[in-house]
Amino acid sequence: MAENPKKKTIEDIEILPVEKVYPEGFKMSHEPITMELITYDRERSEKIDIIDMSHLCDVMTTPGIKWLNVMGIHDLDVVESLALQFKIHLLAIEDILDNDQRIKIDDYGNYLYFIIKMIYVDKKEKKIFIEQVSCFIFENLLISFQENPGDVWGLVRKNILMNKGKIRKLGTGYLAYSLIDAIVDNYFVVMENLEEDVGMLEKYTLSNPRPIILEKIAIIKNNILTLRHNIAPVGEVIRYLQKAESELIEETLSPYFRDVHDNILRNVDSIKALDERVSGVMDIYDSVMSQNTNQIMKLLTIMSSIFIPLTFIAGVYGMNFKHMPELDSPVGYFIVLGVMALLGVGLLVYFKIRKWI
Amino acid sequence: MAENPKKKTIEDIEILPVEKVYPEGFKMSHEPITMELITYDRERSEKIDIIDMSHLCDVMTTPGIKWLNVMGIHDLDVVESLALQFKIHLLAIEDILDNDQRIKIDDYGNYLYFIIKMIYVDKKEKKIFIEQVSCFIFENLLISFQENPGDVWGLVRKNILMNKGKIRKLGTGYLAYSLIDAIVDNYFVVMENLEEDVGMLEKYTLSNPRPIILEKIAIIKNNILTLRHNIAPVGEVIRYLQKAESELIEETLSPYFRDVHDNILRNVDSIKALDERVSGVMDIYDSVMSQNTNQIMKLLTIMSSIFIPLTFIAGVYGMNFKHMPELDSPVGYFIVLGVMALLGVGLLVYFKIRKWI
Amino acid sequence: MAENPKKKTIEDIEILPVEKVYPEGFKMSHEPITMELITYDRERSEKIDIIDMSHLCDVMTTPGIKWLNVMGIHDLDVVESLALQFKIHLLAIEDILDNDQRIKIDDYGNYLYFIIKMIYVDKKEKKIFIEQVSCFIFENLLISFQENPGDVWGLVRKNILMNKGKIRKLGTGYLAYSLIDAIVDNYFVVMENLEEDVGMLEKYTLSNPRPIILEKIAIIKNNILTLRHNIAPVGEVIRYLQKAESELIEETLSPYFRDVHDNILRNVDSIKALDERVSGVMDIYDSVMSQNTNQIMKLLTIMSSIFIPLTFIAGVYGMNFKHMPELDSPVGYFIVLGVMALLGVGLLVYFKIRKWI
Amino acid sequence: MAENPKKKTIEDIEILPVEKVYPEGFKMSHEPITMELITYDRERSEKIDIIDMSHLCDVMTTPGIKWLNVMGIHDLDVVESLALQFKIHLLAIEDILDNDQRIKIDDYGNYLYFIIKMIYVDKKEKKIFIEQVSCFIFENLLISFQENPGDVWGLVRKNILMNKGKIRKLGTGYLAYSLIDAIVDNYFVVMENLEEDVGMLEKYTLSNPRPIILEKIAIIKNNILTLRHNIAPVGEVIRYLQKAESELIEETLSPYFRDVHDNILRNVDSIKALDERVSGVMDIYDSVMSQNTNQIMKLLTIMSSIFIPLTFIAGVYGMNFKHMPELDSPVGYFIVLGVMALLGVGLLVYFKIRKWI
Amino acid sequence: MAENPKKKTIEDIEILPVEKVYPEGFKMSHEPITMELITYDRERSEKIDIIDMSHLCDVMTTPGIKWLNVMGIHDLDVVESLALQFKIHLLAIEDILDNDQRIKIDDYGNYLYFIIKMIYVDKKEKKIFIEQVSCFIFENLLISFQENPGDVWGLVRKNILMNKGKIRKLGTGYLAYSLIDAIVDNYFVVMENLEEDVGMLEKYTLSNPRPIILEKIAIIKNNILTLRHNIAPVGEVIRYLQKAESELIEETLSPYFRDVHDNILRNVDSIKALDERVSGVMDIYDSVMSQNTNQIMKLLTIMSSIFIPLTFIAGVYGMNFKHMPELDSPVGYFIVLGVMALLGVGLLVYFKIRKWI
Repeated sequence: MAENPKKKTIEDIEILPVEKVYPEGFKMSHEPITMELITYDRERSEKIDIIDMSHLCDVMTTPGIKWLNVMGIHDLDVVESLALQFKIHLLAIEDILDNDQRIKIDDYGNYLYFIIKMIYVDKKEKKIFIEQVSCFIFENLLISFQENPGDVWGLVRKNILMNKGKIRKLGTGYLAYSLIDAIVDNYFVVMENLEEDVGMLEKYTLSNPRPIILEKIAIIKNNILTLRHNIAPVGEVIRYLQKAESELIEETLSPYFRDVHDNILRNVDSIKALDERVSGVMDIYDSVMSQNTNQIMKLLTIMSSIFIPLTFIAGVYGMNFKHMPELDSPVGYFIVLGVMALLGVGLLVYFKIRKWI
Repeated sequence: MAENPKKKTIEDIEILPVEKVYPEGFKMSHEPITMELITYDRERSEKIDIIDMSHLCDVMTTPGIKWLNVMGIHDLDVVESLALQFKIHLLAIEDILDNDQRIKIDDYGNYLYFIIKMIYVDKKEKKIFIEQVSCFIFENLLISFQENPGDVWGLVRKNILMNKGKIRKLGTGYLAYSLIDAIVDNYFVVMENLEEDVGMLEKYTLSNPRPIILEKIAIIKNNILTLRHNIAPVGEVIRYLQKAESELIEETLSPYFRDVHDNILRNVDSIKALDERVSGVMDIYDSVMSQNTNQIMKLLTIMSSIFIPLTFIAGVYGMNFKHMPELDSPVGYFIVLGVMALLGVGLLVYFKIRKWI
Repeated sequence: MAENPKKKTIEDIEILPVEKVYPEGFKMSHEPITMELITYDRERSEKIDIIDMSHLCDVMTTPGIKWLNVMGIHDLDVVESLALQFKIHLLAIEDILDNDQRIKIDDYGNYLYFIIKMIYVDKKEKKIFIEQVSCFIFENLLISFQENPGDVWGLVRKNILMNKGKIRKLGTGYLAYSLIDAIVDNYFVVMENLEEDVGMLEKYTLSNPRPIILEKIAIIKNNILTLRHNIAPVGEVIRYLQKAESELIEETLSPYFRDVHDNILRNVDSIKALDERVSGVMDIYDSVMSQNTNQIMKLLTIMSSIFIPLTFIAGVYGMNFKHMPELDSPVGYFIVLGVMALLGVGLLVYFKIRKWI
Repeated sequence: MAENPKKKTIEDIEILPVEKVYPEGFKMSHEPITMELITYDRERSEKIDIIDMSHLCDVMTTPGIKWLNVMGIHDLDVVESLALQFKIHLLAIEDILDNDQRIKIDDYGNYLYFIIKMIYVDKKEKKIFIEQVSCFIFENLLISFQENPGDVWGLVRKNILMNKGKIRKLGTGYLAYSLIDAIVDNYFVVMENLEEDVGMLEKYTLSNPRPIILEKIAIIKNNILTLRHNIAPVGEVIRYLQKAESELIEETLSPYFRDVHDNILRNVDSIKALDERVSGVMDIYDSVMSQNTNQIMKLLTIMSSIFIPLTFIAGVYGMNFKHMPELDSPVGYFIVLGVMALLGVGLLVYFKIRKWI
Repeated sequence: MAENPKKKTIEDIEILPVEKVYPEGFKMSHEPITMELITYDRERSEKIDIIDMSHLCDVMTTPGIKWLNVMGIHDLDVVESLALQFKIHLLAIEDILDNDQRIKIDDYGNYLYFIIKMIYVDKKEKKIFIEQVSCFIFENLLISFQENPGDVWGLVRKNILMNKGKIRKLGTGYLAYSLIDAIVDNYFVVMENLEEDVGMLEKYTLSNPRPIILEKIAIIKNNILTLRHNIAPVGEVIRYLQKAESELIEETLSPYFRDVHDNILRNVDSIKALDERVSGVMDIYDSVMSQNTNQIMKLLTIMSSIFIPLTFIAGVYGMNFKHMPELDSPVGYFIVLGVMALLGVGLLVYFKIRKWI
């Protein structure tokens, strides 16, 4: 909001495009995948960075709730050895590795597996990034896979380590809720960003429509398409968790998931409303455009309609016929000038009556 | 209706925009929150203004039906101490404080919690305001939270204090019905206001379409979008209350809630119809505009097509060639004038046949 | 159909607007409400006009089927004393009095209450009127409320009094069916009227599109909107009656209600089809309009493109330079005329090739 | 397909309009209704033309499967005496006689009654006709009512009389299937006809858009509307028969009805696709039209912009001022001609740069 | 992607049309139908080409899983003798032979029968081909019918013959899954091809809109229509298989079919998104077009409005009246030139203020 005063012209409105973190699919990186493991119970909490896979050998049997956060999916060996260790189904592994997956939740009996998308504004890159997050909920273990280090879960980590809120008192279900909640809360930031852009476009389209608006609308339309595609299905994932059909999610968490579900619905409503507003901007742009053409045509018609007959009259008396009686009259010139003036004024009056001027 | 005769031009039609009371979210006010407590049973009724929170200590155990109306949500301390006192769930408190909440109803076992929006025309501010109302229905207590003092519940208060209607004979369920009914009845006032505006636009678009219509349509479209968003989901809240799944709502109230539900459906129908009518106005505006362009083009074409050839003929006989036989003829000039007249009339007849004039 | 030959121009097509009988709500009339009571059984039938409310005292206990038809709702006293006598719920009374009610059916246990709309063409007033009809089905009594004397139930009355068909042999359920059937049958008359209008518009839009078509389309669109709003929900009322969930409707009537339900569906289909056809007319109008503009532009362009260069040439040789060799040549004039003719013909050929003429 | 080479211009594409056989309802004919009765069992088959109603007296009790085909519904006496004889419900009789009935199936206990529409291309009349077919399925009797002699059931008759396929081995259910199948198969012929027309329109709209396309589109849109209206609901009839809820339809026929149902779905899909394609043609027509206007405007603008300034210059030196120094210069004329040439070429280059030519 | 740099102009973008392999239905070919039979169990696998139908006599009783792949449906004798041998229902045979069948699955008790479409890009023919695949799943036998030799199942064959993955360890259900999975995976290739095309169109429409874009859009719209028609219903087939209602599909395969089902949903989502993007391109094309017309009109209006009045002034002083006082003034000419310059500059300033230049 503080920036608005500076946005003087429509060129200054920068619509951030929504894009996948790695549009081409797999990231060809040679950096090792980083992992962090947070272990906690009512009394203690501990955060360690995993460098060697062997550190994970006894994670399954360690007491307490464990959250293993894997930041990067580009190293096939690491992902596969993790899958092997935690007995994850091959189809789920394939899904993790494909960053173009559909949002969904699958119940594999001893663990739940869901995929949702983290969406955040990157002001430096001038983009809104979509990053795929895959989560496995075991009884005392939650494994999350991100495409990149860096996420929206700072507050969750802090709450665990500083023992704020209830998170240390509850199990992996509440941890999953906290992670989803943080992601969904960030959708609002993205939506507000878009809503502000659309509001700007509405204003400029009415006051000063310019071709560049079409380009900005094209970007926003694609953004809306992408966001709807990536936010709406999250509702189904949460509804599944809310119904607590799996034993891995305690029934007492139902109000929490209901709350996140409400947030998703609010987001979906906002997206729909945005879509309608953008269509409205397009309609108004077209209307304003055709009305401008109309204005221009009016001027052209008025100028032409007045001067073309006058020029014709001048042309007639510019002819070189030997015998043209009017030319010899000493007042002929002034009569013709008078006629011309009358004709011009008459046409002006006519246009005035037609309400063109 | 009485104002219509004054609305002579389209500029005079003032479309009131629909807006949230506090668009920026929390109101930064240092005034204390005001509260009123109405206690009543079949015999008595009493209304007191609560200044000190300690007055509320024994409300829960006081005999009779109690309605606690909190006017303002900007003082976090007050809201939280109320929540503590009445053992309201933390998630519900968060919802009260966020004035951008979705309309919904949650059953927390010993109390029902619902959020709906009060919508009213403020003629002084020239706006239609949307104010969030949160209600808690306990067995003998109803707590309502508004964003601001001032509401549409004057009649409900009067009915309680003057013992009109059945309200003193029934419980919190009927009180909730009365509050919702008053809010929904006021939706009709808002809708009628909008319908009158759209009717005006329809009239002016056909008779005298002007660019300013586009701006007015843009406001109305946003109004419709906002109203649909804030009225349609109220139906779900009422259906839930009507089904009387909670023990807090007696089954005998079902016809009353059915009645409010019908009113909501009428409102939703009106909104849909308005939306279609506005789209129709837009279509007609475009058609009228392109048909105006068409008219203008016709005039231009007629003027040009008649005079351009005539001017050419005049130009020919204005050339200064030494040897131009026609120029020496004593009747040349009159013949040329005749030809010109014939040509002009011929073209006029042609346009008449083409039905252009 | 017989009138078509007279409808020569589009101005002659008169689109009757659909309107409520009393658009402003209550009718401020001082005439007394008229009522008629028809009593019948297998053997007898009798019709009396009720002038004094006291005549109704013992209606409930009279043997036979009774149909009480109340024509007018403007006298609150009459309506309320009727309600009192027949123990009608207060909410139902409120609905009767508000002529903007939604179509619906409510089961109050010992009676069914439904609201539907009578729609009829009034050729004298040049309007299609919508009149609200409220009906109460008791065990041996049916009460109907209309806004006005005059209705579409002439045949029902005749069938009862002349003992035609089965009506005298069956109960209030069949009577209700007969009343609804008569109303729904009349919807077809209204629809045919509209379909004929739309057919006319289609014809004229293709052959001779004129701005006045937009005004006619605007009326028809509003008509369609109003009719859909008032006809479609009747289906729910009938489906409810058909399912015979109330004991007041015998199961053997199911095929009759199924039949009316089919008629409602046919009407709804017709409305949808009409809506699409009207949108089609609008699209075609726009296309024809832009194609007309195109034609006009072609003529303007052809005229201008041919004569502007020729006029330029004439202008050149009209210059008064002392030294212009061509002017002195005895054939200069004829050469220039030839060049002009060649140029003009060349441009005509070019336009011919471009298929513009 | 063989005719395509002849269709050289868009005027040659003849879109056959879809119409009811008797648009005005009842056919006022004085010819007697013709009827045919086919009796068959595993061993024998016999076809007789019924002239006298008395021939039908003992049909109900004759052994074997009977198919009574009534060709014509204009003679009320015949239809009613048939109804009486076979104890058909009055409401069903009314439906037979109204040729504007909705497609539907009703179960009357001892017989099933369904209405569907026969649709066929009549190349001679240059129309696609819709004819209402009503069928009654009794245990060993099937009665079909058509509006006209002449139908698409030639193959069914042949199969019965020549004992081809299973038809002689199965009951009235299979006969009903055969009749419906023949009707539905013919829908494909109609659809292909329309698809070819739309394909043609698509081609011509892109290559040479002409106003006449609008008229053809209007006919096709009405055809699609009518076909969807008359084909889609057949699916419900068949689904009802497939579910074999009535004892009159054996369960073993389920795969057959499933097959026809698939065909109906294919038809409905084709109609939807056609509708989208026609909308596409309309959109493209508008785009091509506005782009043509654009081309024409360009030419006008280029011609005007080049010659108007040149004509002005010529006009200046055509003025008759006594003192105009340039006129006396011996090279003045040539300098002016040079300036004119330069200006003209400069403007041409400018338009070249703007990519207008 | 590697080709993009070469695609310099919009003419270079080649939109491959989606077409049936044999648009006219049956292929009139005299080549014999080729068939291959792959037999496998946990230990062995064998692939033989069937030339003589007699080789198939004992296939039913051979131990192990058998996959019979029939490549070609043009030889009716072969297809019918196969049907006879494996006791396939006549209706299913009819479906195989009609290459315009709807996608569907039928349960015939001892075998399942489904039809889906193989879609692949043929770069040589510059087309995207749709080929109908019919599959019969028996207990130990799967028969697949294609229209042509050549398919997307190379990997499935390899996996069987080289014993890769689980395919040799599981039954015909898993084989069916593998075949469907291979087909569905190839849909993604087709979709990516289309998405790239639409991306290109979006780019060119904004930067340099040209009529040819309309032709390309028309092809893409038809492609999208055809693909949606042929991909979306596959979801129903897979859902049926996933629910494992038939004993022929083991329940353990459910996660595999769920996975393919997800892929179908992703494809359907992509198609919907593509459709919206193409509509967006069309809208933007129209807007850009009308804005171009607007630009052209502006130039025309500016040129005309400036020079037409000037030419008129020149015309006035070109008149040949004997008595025109200004002509005799020695500075008349220069005053008029000055007035003309002033007028021209004034109009330019006016257009500058209106922001037209």
